[in-house]
Amino acid sequence: MKELPDIDKNFSDWYNEVVFRSGLCDQAPVKGCIIIKPYGQSIWELMQKDINSFIKDMNVSNVSFPMLIPEKFIQAEADHVEGFAPELAIVTHAGGKDLEENFIIRPTSETIIHSMFSRWIKSWRDLPIKINQWCSVIRWEKRPRPFIRTTEFWWQEGHTGHETAEEAYGQAYEAHSKYREYIKQWLMIPFVYGEKANFEKFAGASLTLTVEGMMRDGKALQLATSHLLNDTFSKAFNIYFENKKQERKLVHLTSWGCTTRLIGAVVMVHGDNKGLVLPSKVAPIQVIIIPIFKLSNEDLNANFILIAKKIKEILSKQGIRSEMNLSIECSVGEKFHRYEMEGVPLRIEFGERDISAGKVILYNRSNGKKELYSKENLLDGNIDFNKILFHYDSQLYENAEIRMRNKIIQTEELLSIFGLELLKKSIFYETGWCGDDSLEVKLKEYKATVRCILSSKNKINCCLHGKICKSLYDIIIARAY
Amino acid sequence: MKELPDIDKNFSDWYNEVVFRSGLCDQAPVKGCIIIKPYGQSIWELMQKDINSFIKDMNVSNVSFPMLIPEKFIQAEADHVEGFAPELAIVTHAGGKDLEENFIIRPTSETIIHSMFSRWIKSWRDLPIKINQWCSVIRWEKRPRPFIRTTEFWWQEGHTGHETAEEAYGQAYEAHSKYREYIKQWLMIPFVYGEKANFEKFAGASLTLTVEGMMRDGKALQLATSHLLNDTFSKAFNIYFENKKQERKLVHLTSWGCTTRLIGAVVMVHGDNKGLVLPSKVAPIQVIIIPIFKLSNEDLNANFILIAKKIKEILSKQGIRSEMNLSIECSVGEKFHRYEMEGVPLRIEFGERDISAGKVILYNRSNGKKELYSKENLLDGNIDFNKILFHYDSQLYENAEIRMRNKIIQTEELLSIFGLELLKKSIFYETGWCGDDSLEVKLKEYKATVRCILSSKNKINCCLHGKICKSLYDIIIARAY
Repeated sequence: MKELPDIDKNFSDWYNEVVFRSGLCDQAPVKGCIIIKPYGQSIWELMQKDINSFIKDMNVSNVSFPMLIPEKFIQAEADHVEGFAPELAIVTHAGGKDLEENFIIRPTSETIIHSMFSRWIKSWRDLPIKINQWCSVIRWEKRPRPFIRTTEFWWQEGHTGHETAEEAYGQAYEAHSKYREYIKQWLMIPFVYGEKANFEKFAGASLTLTVEGMMRDGKALQLATSHLLNDTFSKAFNIYFENKKQERKLVHLTSWGCTTRLIGAVVMVHGDNKGLVLPSKVAPIQVIIIPIFKLSNEDLNANFILIAKKIKEILSKQGIRSEMNLSIECSVGEKFHRYEMEGVPLRIEFGERDISAGKVILYNRSNGKKELYSKENLLDGNIDFNKILFHYDSQLYENAEIRMRNKIIQTEELLSIFGLELLKKSIFYETGWCGDDSLEVKLKEYKATVRCILSSKNKINCCLHGKICKSLYDIIIARAY
Repeated sequence: MKELPDIDKNFSDWYNEVVFRSGLCDQAPVKGCIIIKPYGQSIWELMQKDINSFIKDMNVSNVSFPMLIPEKFIQAEADHVEGFAPELAIVTHAGGKDLEENFIIRPTSETIIHSMFSRWIKSWRDLPIKINQWCSVIRWEKRPRPFIRTTEFWWQEGHTGHETAEEAYGQAYEAHSKYREYIKQWLMIPFVYGEKANFEKFAGASLTLTVEGMMRDGKALQLATSHLLNDTFSKAFNIYFENKKQERKLVHLTSWGCTTRLIGAVVMVHGDNKGLVLPSKVAPIQVIIIPIFKLSNEDLNANFILIAKKIKEILSKQGIRSEMNLSIECSVGEKFHRYEMEGVPLRIEFGERDISAGKVILYNRSNGKKELYSKENLLDGNIDFNKILFHYDSQLYENAEIRMRNKIIQTEELLSIFGLELLKKSIFYETGWCGDDSLEVKLKEYKATVRCILSSKNKINCCLHGKICKSLYDIIIARAY
């Protein structure tokens, strides 16, 4: 099989090849859609398990809402319909006849969930209400890219209702914090984060908090968002409650989600010219065990199978997900190649010479280094694989963090001195901003956007005016997927 | 709150009330659809976990296919399109314009999965292929009923491809066996099982294996089906492989699934006039702990909370899912009522007098009996709650089994002597059948069907001809949901 396109020279082709070759997904016979294949699905299920667990920790309950939404619901909130109308898939015919009222396939479920909130919520006793669902949604995509931007994608969407704006903000912020924790500590992806500026806010939100990762090519990818919804949703869907003073008040809403895009992010941040490099917590196989058989020597092979099984047992006792490849139909080279492509973090290999010397080899997918370990020590359970994987993961994060840091440039004169030429490069620009919309309009021409307003304040001059303006923000400007 | 409709006098109303009042689901603002609320979703997630585990045991991998299927795919297999056409929801407009080619929302995924099988399968080395997905599907329902028959429902659908018909049959049969095991040993639901007769086969299958439960009112409910697909699917989608002799052969396909209907079945089989009665393995709360507070006595209440927490700890050590209700806003009566309605298997309650006597009360939701246990013994961990739940479950199964057995009537002269009047009753008839289609045509008039062809052969006379006919089957005839 021919080599992958070079990751540094042709990142886009590299990505498209690697997601298919590693068995994460395939092109579906539906434009803009993918099929998530077993390997990709295993990664997604590992992600779901841990994300679901932090969602439960926030006292949020899972539910399932219908995928179809009456068309009039989506029209009830003006910004929302404006934002989503061009991407909707519409069911006009069902059960053998034309429908009197069309349905849309959910692009997100605010409207149908809010219609139920208005029935479920009567008084402060019913609040807070906190629900989440795992499902897929459809947004018709003009420029699809596997995992990153697909017409159908899989996600979780959390929806909550609260008595006060402060409490709602607290919930949106808590979800945002949990996403950051997960993305950093599970996916080993560094990021910048903060509020979205106006143009990039969720359609109908008063505030959107975002986590923005930097992909290997220097472009930004929005990884998870948390929205504080403005009261037009509550008004549109009549979501009122009676407070303790028996006053009728609007419920304060939030929504927040992350998607199968996270799989794409893992590929784009950690991958290399050999294929995927998976963080251990989302690696379906954390250690692959490959005995190097001798075709002519059945006794040796039988002994090697025994050793492999013992190693698997030891790993299993440490809670490590491992597999053996005992096939005699594939060459050792083919096996190495396959698991490198699949990004399996560690490989234990051993041949005749290693075993004679009482050794096995441990290969680290991330740094490509091989280390010798005592076979006896390993089989006695004296080698702590969780520790090895912890270091492996830390290294992944550190490498990605260095790459990101090297591509964040502080500038005070983005527009005035260098001109907008700069924006053609894929890089993050950190700069100051007075908050004037004209920046976002100008950036649009250059296919760049304000990715987020940082919470830090470095007091960099405003890139529009070259000075410290009133209400100055620290922002990140970049091109994004 | 007023009482539930009587389960024996008005089963249908009882069912509709109980699924809403117990918090399993709500009516959605989309005709024929429900919203699965947190309590129902928790039950479904428990089901998913164990079903997923036996699916993995069959070496089947999870995947995710798109929900949209090009309309021409569904038309490729003649029986399949005939079976599903009246129930399809069709997307004709997307991304702001009318589509050149319509998409249907999957009613089941054979066609799109087979289209990929034809790309993925080249030789015997690629077989068997075994995949499964958890998703929702849409079949436009004229007579919806929560969980039992809804326009959108959630399910798993397994799809496999094999070298030979025998191997494919083996897979369909294995799935069928696993479903039986799960339904009996997890859901405590008794059933009859076997092959479907012609009229009830899956659209496009050469053979359908079914598990047929009897609901409390004597009607049948199809609980899980496994299909051996005929070769028109392989032909329609060009699914060929090269065998070891280098001959080009058709791949032999199966599919099999079970749905959120299982939740409805649990309600319909085990419920009673107080509400749900849940088998322990799908009970989100297996034991509810309710201290009976005294409003005037804060010291006593504080002590009761401590005891409740200790009990919860003990239960947790035994792997039991328990919750405490420590609210002082609800009365004890309201609390008892709520968890009885929710079908929580066991309730531990204790008041001042019990604790003074060193006792706590254990209430069994299924038989309504209260037993006294030594508080000390309980807190020392000497009471085995897994054993208590095991007996609770066994009792559930036994009761349901007796109810079913009492409503299965063997008859040799269903049509000739009694006439078809019999079929107006809700009951299972076991009889003989020569296999002539005329039976199914006649039964249709009476809204009854051949539920399954039993594998047992009791040599009952054929109900059409009143004698032992050639190729005589033993069958179950019933009305069904």
